[in-house]
Amino acid sequence: MAHIDLGNDIPGIRGLFTYRPDTGRALSGLGEALLRADSPLSRGERELIATYVSHLNECRFCAGSHGACAAAQLPGGSGQVEATLADLAQAPVSAKMRALLAIGGRVQESGRAVTDKDLAAARAEGATDREIHDAVLIAAAFCMFNRYVDGLGALTPDDPAYYAAAGQHLAEHGYLPPQPAG
Amino acid sequence: MAHIDLGNDIPGIRGLFTYRPDTGRALSGLGEALLRADSPLSRGERELIATYVSHLNECRFCAGSHGACAAAQLPGGSGQVEATLADLAQAPVSAKMRALLAIGGRVQESGRAVTDKDLAAARAEGATDREIHDAVLIAAAFCMFNRYVDGLGALTPDDPAYYAAAGQHLAEHGYLPPQPAG
Repeated sequence: MAHIDLGNDIPGIRGLFTYRPDTGRALSGLGEALLRADSPLSRGERELIATYVSHLNECRFCAGSHGACAAAQLPGGSGQVEATLADLAQAPVSAKMRALLAIGGRVQESGRAVTDKDLAAARAEGATDREIHDAVLIAAAFCMFNRYVDGLGALTPDDPAYYAAAGQHLAEHGYLPPQPAG
Repeated sequence: MAHIDLGNDIPGIRGLFTYRPDTGRALSGLGEALLRADSPLSRGERELIATYVSHLNECRFCAGSHGACAAAQLPGGSGQVEATLADLAQAPVSAKMRALLAIGGRVQESGRAVTDKDLAAARAEGATDREIHDAVLIAAAFCMFNRYVDGLGALTPDDPAYYAAAGQHLAEHGYLPPQPAG
């Protein structure tokens, strides 16, 4: 049971989007722009940042669905996602991605926690301003999405098959609501 | 100096929106929907939740601009905002607003920190599901905006007059970028 009567039994953030469609549209558009639109980071890399932050925030719904979406789009699949969450220092991703994920971890703590040293480490591995920007905004956005989902007690399925299907659907179709026919 | 080269010297989140306009439009639309569109909470009350969460996150830019915007729209002006930030338990707002601000404070900590007791306390003061929803989403959204601003070291003016003018402008014109003429 969610903390409020949503008038629907749609799991996770989609149930919240259906409850209040105008903010739902704005948040869906943000997800599409952040995770799918043009960026020097691949879609899989961006989903991995989203997953890492959701994992740090212990948001089971977002970590599950975005972890599956990352796995569907990264060359190393779910093993690559799981190894990254288990130990960032040894994560099987590029050194640049490790540094960007570390910045995401700082942002999860607080925007004020990002240090010059964090930024220099990312730049030393070749991260550009735009990559740093996108990593910070993705991490910040998931500090919102995670709080929205858990702050309202959104329905969080237990079945791993739910997340595998949801992640595959997001990887194929993205975040925008279906357009009305005609 | 921001942490990245934004190519502009616009203070705060507007400098970030100008740097990456597509996410800027999505975020502006979210701000307008949350803080200005129809809600059972007044615009001043919603700005006060935004200010309170920004204050807890120690985001000087957002606390300053939204605090001024709240002051411009609340009957008690800046004194009401300052007293609320100084001591929530004695805040000169309705008992319902004190309970909703307390939920916002839980969300600032973590979505998982919201308890049944917090929800029951808000309902006992007459808070509806929609008011609880909006308070949670505003608090969650400012956990994003605050991290975006400070995580990228956005320019944060020192002059109180800057925030007074920015808050007044937001109260009058809202969050959407100006429409192109014609």
